[in-house]
Amino acid sequence: MNKTKVVSESLTTMTEMIFPNDTNTLGNLMGGNLMRLMDVVGAICAQKHSNRIVVTASVDNVSFKESIPLGSVVTLRAKVTRAFNSSMEVVIDVWAEDIPAQQRVTTNKAFFTFVAVDQTGRPIDVPKAVPETEEEKALFDGALRRRQLRLVLAGRLKPQEATELKALFEGLE
Amino acid sequence: MNKTKVVSESLTTMTEMIFPNDTNTLGNLMGGNLMRLMDVVGAICAQKHSNRIVVTASVDNVSFKESIPLGSVVTLRAKVTRAFNSSMEVVIDVWAEDIPAQQRVTTNKAFFTFVAVDQTGRPIDVPKAVPETEEEKALFDGALRRRQLRLVLAGRLKPQEATELKALFEGLE
Amino acid sequence: MNKTKVVSESLTTMTEMIFPNDTNTLGNLMGGNLMRLMDVVGAICAQKHSNRIVVTASVDNVSFKESIPLGSVVTLRAKVTRAFNSSMEVVIDVWAEDIPAQQRVTTNKAFFTFVAVDQTGRPIDVPKAVPETEEEKALFDGALRRRQLRLVLAGRLKPQEATELKALFEGLE
Amino acid sequence: MNKTKVVSESLTTMTEMIFPNDTNTLGNLMGGNLMRLMDVVGAICAQKHSNRIVVTASVDNVSFKESIPLGSVVTLRAKVTRAFNSSMEVVIDVWAEDIPAQQRVTTNKAFFTFVAVDQTGRPIDVPKAVPETEEEKALFDGALRRRQLRLVLAGRLKPQEATELKALFEGLE
Amino acid sequence: MNKTKVVSESLTTMTEMIFPNDTNTLGNLMGGNLMRLMDVVGAICAQKHSNRIVVTASVDNVSFKESIPLGSVVTLRAKVTRAFNSSMEVVIDVWAEDIPAQQRVTTNKAFFTFVAVDQTGRPIDVPKAVPETEEEKALFDGALRRRQLRLVLAGRLKPQEATELKALFEGLE
Amino acid sequence: MNKTKVVSESLTTMTEMIFPNDTNTLGNLMGGNLMRLMDVVGAICAQKHSNRIVVTASVDNVSFKESIPLGSVVTLRAKVTRAFNSSMEVVIDVWAEDIPAQQRVTTNKAFFTFVAVDQTGRPIDVPKAVPETEEEKALFDGALRRRQLRLVLAGRLKPQEATELKALFEGLE
Repeated sequence: MNKTKVVSESLTTMTEMIFPNDTNTLGNLMGGNLMRLMDVVGAICAQKHSNRIVVTASVDNVSFKESIPLGSVVTLRAKVTRAFNSSMEVVIDVWAEDIPAQQRVTTNKAFFTFVAVDQTGRPIDVPKAVPETEEEKALFDGALRRRQLRLVLAGRLKPQEATELKALFEGLE
Repeated sequence: MNKTKVVSESLTTMTEMIFPNDTNTLGNLMGGNLMRLMDVVGAICAQKHSNRIVVTASVDNVSFKESIPLGSVVTLRAKVTRAFNSSMEVVIDVWAEDIPAQQRVTTNKAFFTFVAVDQTGRPIDVPKAVPETEEEKALFDGALRRRQLRLVLAGRLKPQEATELKALFEGLE
Repeated sequence: MNKTKVVSESLTTMTEMIFPNDTNTLGNLMGGNLMRLMDVVGAICAQKHSNRIVVTASVDNVSFKESIPLGSVVTLRAKVTRAFNSSMEVVIDVWAEDIPAQQRVTTNKAFFTFVAVDQTGRPIDVPKAVPETEEEKALFDGALRRRQLRLVLAGRLKPQEATELKALFEGLE
Repeated sequence: MNKTKVVSESLTTMTEMIFPNDTNTLGNLMGGNLMRLMDVVGAICAQKHSNRIVVTASVDNVSFKESIPLGSVVTLRAKVTRAFNSSMEVVIDVWAEDIPAQQRVTTNKAFFTFVAVDQTGRPIDVPKAVPETEEEKALFDGALRRRQLRLVLAGRLKPQEATELKALFEGLE
Repeated sequence: MNKTKVVSESLTTMTEMIFPNDTNTLGNLMGGNLMRLMDVVGAICAQKHSNRIVVTASVDNVSFKESIPLGSVVTLRAKVTRAFNSSMEVVIDVWAEDIPAQQRVTTNKAFFTFVAVDQTGRPIDVPKAVPETEEEKALFDGALRRRQLRLVLAGRLKPQEATELKALFEGLE
Repeated sequence: MNKTKVVSESLTTMTEMIFPNDTNTLGNLMGGNLMRLMDVVGAICAQKHSNRIVVTASVDNVSFKESIPLGSVVTLRAKVTRAFNSSMEVVIDVWAEDIPAQQRVTTNKAFFTFVAVDQTGRPIDVPKAVPETEEEKALFDGALRRRQLRLVLAGRLKPQEATELKALFEGLE
């Protein structure tokens, strides 16, 4: 398949209100619930790029720096960064707002990878992703490096073959 | 605080049945729902080690290789690997069973980090974690390396200072 | 309060996947579940306009013409049309997509009214809503008519005083 | 089909307790959650009248005048008012009780319309609804007027043909 | 407290539709979900008798003879049978209907016991329950026997003091 | 089928955190929600013994003596006690912990009975359960007595034939 698609076609926005059952003892959104939301918005985004059923393949390191209290409004914005055969890396930006207090904090940036599959669950190729803006191009370029890190961490790529990763860890030399 | 605790005291087992609403279009458990379960079992485990309220600080790269169909029984086993001041790394092993078919697959190994906090949400020191078995000792040793990778990825540690990480990426030299 | 706010500032987009428990015996989204989603997206939208806690005051006639099957992606887009003292009318457009089949149908247009309240639940004035585009102006103009219909239906306005409503029902004369 | 059925055969009562996740920031039942309950009780009621699978066709204007706090007991009582070919109008009365405080408030009266369908989702005729009490007869008579308003609002009936509606808006002449 | 109340004042009816997530691998309502519904309807019923907050004290043996498939309508009817100081025995009758197939089966009769408590959770006396119909009187009489069985099973009453229980097990002599 | 299986093979542990929606007005876990958890852990346990789909057949008297507050960690441990043809009795021990306060209370011991069924829902024989420890042997011996009580309560066994039950109620003679 040599179809291409601009990445902006996959843009997906999800807005949610934080309800009591989403929160921990301190009344803040639990990290696991936020990851569930990220997984849903990311899957919809990857569906839009591929016009296929998709399954979650991996989640890169996610850190939770800001607490999101009960009653907050959380917005998740997902966009495909790059496609590799049947897999798509999706970047998900999350911010939380206490609207009456007019406070807004960026809470997370996460990278999820989804694989397009047919009805029997077998991987199937997807269109190439074409970045247009400077930010999209930077994400497209970084995707190769993040993919190599994923493969090294999964033991599926030897570090000496992870040529792109050197850029990230050049200080290690 | 110089109290110590053996890591086996934090062992936590959660067994769950996969219900319809947990599944995607193909009838398999969604990755995000599994991460939500991991977050809960990991938080209970970190509570057991620290006897404190805990919040999720980060999740390391998680990959989803096996699909887990509707009706499966999923078991999650969590254990603290190492403590650093107020934070605890927890390893979570997940396997899924189709019990009538007598099939069992190991589906995931994930590392979550939790921070112990007081009632106002401020970090508070936890006991040192003491490994006893060979497996626990290997996880304890690896925790430092994984922590450095987390700090480098978060931009909070310069790669050249990540001395432990060199062991992981020595082929990059 | 004589502050004003352009209506586009309240734009809120919610994207959801339809899960098994949202569906009826035919495997389609239940009308009541869609109304629950509309209520959440509408409330977030009215919060954005007013920077206040809001409560649902009323829902205008909603009709469900299209069925939305399990696995569909539903997008809800809400925007304030006009503010009256403490109340805001919000228009909610809903469409559903079967992304793998590349089918998209507009399923609903609904009008919800929210009231801004303080912490004790008492109504509190909100900024005037300023429409900018032609579509926003048409919705702004129609809001008065819809409000009169609401008041007449609730027995709080005598039909002969509903001057704007005459435009809608002029054929009845 | 010229079978008939008295409307009292469709009487359906649902009693629910309001749990934390049903509530908004002020601790009161969200309007959208109440509409979801109305949809379920109305669908069961329409099933009882038609002995068919039913789908929600429309909801008339609903207003929310009373707040229903966490822990309240909500009772919904539904009854078919009148049948038109394959569609049935259902009236739903809702009241809320704070039982320990011995307080009870009538919170809503709503009209939902359901359509009976076969297994393929195609409309199918239902028995005529026969009112018996004075209240049932008044609701039966009003159903025609409300149906015309629905059709006019949906743009499917010209106002000048809405003869019954004139009774409602006679003051407009 | 020597207030009395007729048992019919506590009558509570709950009607529910069985959704996908309520079912097991065979597509039938799980026993545990039915018990959760019984607990809610029973608690509302005991609240009505006592005008107090109530907590579940015990559930008598419940057997599940009939399977209740997805899409069924389940009706639960609860009524206080007898009050003992701060505790109330509630009988819950459950039936399930496949309304399109016009099939109805009685699925369960269960006895739950609730205790009325004040805001601090301490037991508080409730009105005596007065049975009126023959059926209510039989349930009232049997309540003493069932209570003795509960106390014997809980090790809080010596069998030889369970005088009422002899009637039930007279064949054991 | 004359296969046998030691009861320890069926051991199943479930650990859960109590979230807001699981609680009643006093902020404690509702009895019905605990029974739902018991049903799930018991069903998994009976699946492990039988390698079959199982359905809940009955629940013995359960009493709720301890309240379990929001934020508690509840652990349920289930083990088959004895098998009878197609049915298995499962004992479920439940304890609750307030981990920060280092408090742990045993809250319940319950007996559930499950029946193994084939894909059409028909009962199918299971392996005999073989107890090994003293505690398992005592539970195995008591299972016959509890089964007779169940059958007597269900009107399916005449008291004079409940020979084992006499041991329980010998004081009644």
